Amino acid sequence: MFEIFGTHITANGDFTPGDLTLMRSLSTIKKIRRREFLLQEGEVCRYKIFVTKGLLRSYCLKHDGTEHVMRFASENCWTTDHDSFKNQTPSVCNIEALENTEVVLWTRESLAELYTSIPALKSYMERLIDKSLRVSHERILKNISYTSEEKYEDFITSFPDVFRRVPLHMVASYLGVSRETLSRIRQVRMKS
Amino acid sequence: MFEIFGTHITANGDFTPGDLTLMRSLSTIKKIRRREFLLQEGEVCRYKIFVTKGLLRSYCLKHDGTEHVMRFASENCWTTDHDSFKNQTPSVCNIEALENTEVVLWTRESLAELYTSIPALKSYMERLIDKSLRVSHERILKNISYTSEEKYEDFITSFPDVFRRVPLHMVASYLGVSRETLSRIRQVRMKS
Repeated sequence: MFEIFGTHITANGDFTPGDLTLMRSLSTIKKIRRREFLLQEGEVCRYKIFVTKGLLRSYCLKHDGTEHVMRFASENCWTTDHDSFKNQTPSVCNIEALENTEVVLWTRESLAELYTSIPALKSYMERLIDKSLRVSHERILKNISYTSEEKYEDFITSFPDVFRRVPLHMVASYLGVSRETLSRIRQVRMKS
Repeated sequence: MFEIFGTHITANGDFTPGDLTLMRSLSTIKKIRRREFLLQEGEVCRYKIFVTKGLLRSYCLKHDGTEHVMRFASENCWTTDHDSFKNQTPSVCNIEALENTEVVLWTRESLAELYTSIPALKSYMERLIDKSLRVSHERILKNISYTSEEKYEDFITSFPDVFRRVPLHMVASYLGVSRETLSRIRQVRMKS
């Protein structure tokens, strides 16, 4: 399972076999079953999570009990509650497996130790944060400027794999479009 | 004008008078008039911008010509096109002064030089990026989960100063709510 992470990280920076051994020694490998949680609201997010198999979703609960999907993370994706992980404060979101999933985990302390020993990992993570910021800005722009139809089309184009693996109501939740609107858009699209 | 930046930065990290002198020597101070641009779509964003007086807005143009406000930046705020500035690629947004505005500017090269000489500035900027990511995630959650009424109320509560200084159609654009809907919400709110 760690080999999948190894392949990913060596494709994204200049890492030695020794670096990989050190990263492995400070990691935890975990299998979680569908519907199991890696994080629940109110807990401190202890891990930065790399998905080697399966699919996770992060979602927040509104006071009326509705679920709002912040993020899907499938193979070769990182996920965490950035703020809770960074500051070790209670999380406002939940991370749940939508399929049987395998992950590699690092604590904040382990990562800090790795950054000191492996500068390439620190700069990889800085690039990851930059990318996360760019993706967030793009999503905000789509949120405020796209029609519901455009949001739906964009999701299918951007995440074809996730689209096949999650129920439509979760796509609706991610896009901030009502389930009814999305069903109607899908029906119109299937007829045309 | 630089003194305003000096007050801000010394309140947010451990900086010596020598650090401030160095930051000043590598900065550019600029006054721009209302409706002038600091950045236009297609240009490379050359500066990281600190506002000492006035108000800027960043906005993107959709293919149909509609404007979508990504951000307002008033006194003591930073702004830039993060992706364009970081990678020196053409920007997808515009930064325009909504009032006569005064700013302190640094190029990417100047900042790189400052980070090497002043580690406290590097960690201040890392905290700024973290904050920017957290604020972006909060905005996404609001975008996908709040009703139009909740978005409007939240804007007034979060940015009372900006709310007083910008026209309602720009607030509507920032929130991704139609101008008509926002006018209706405002009228209902004023009657109650």
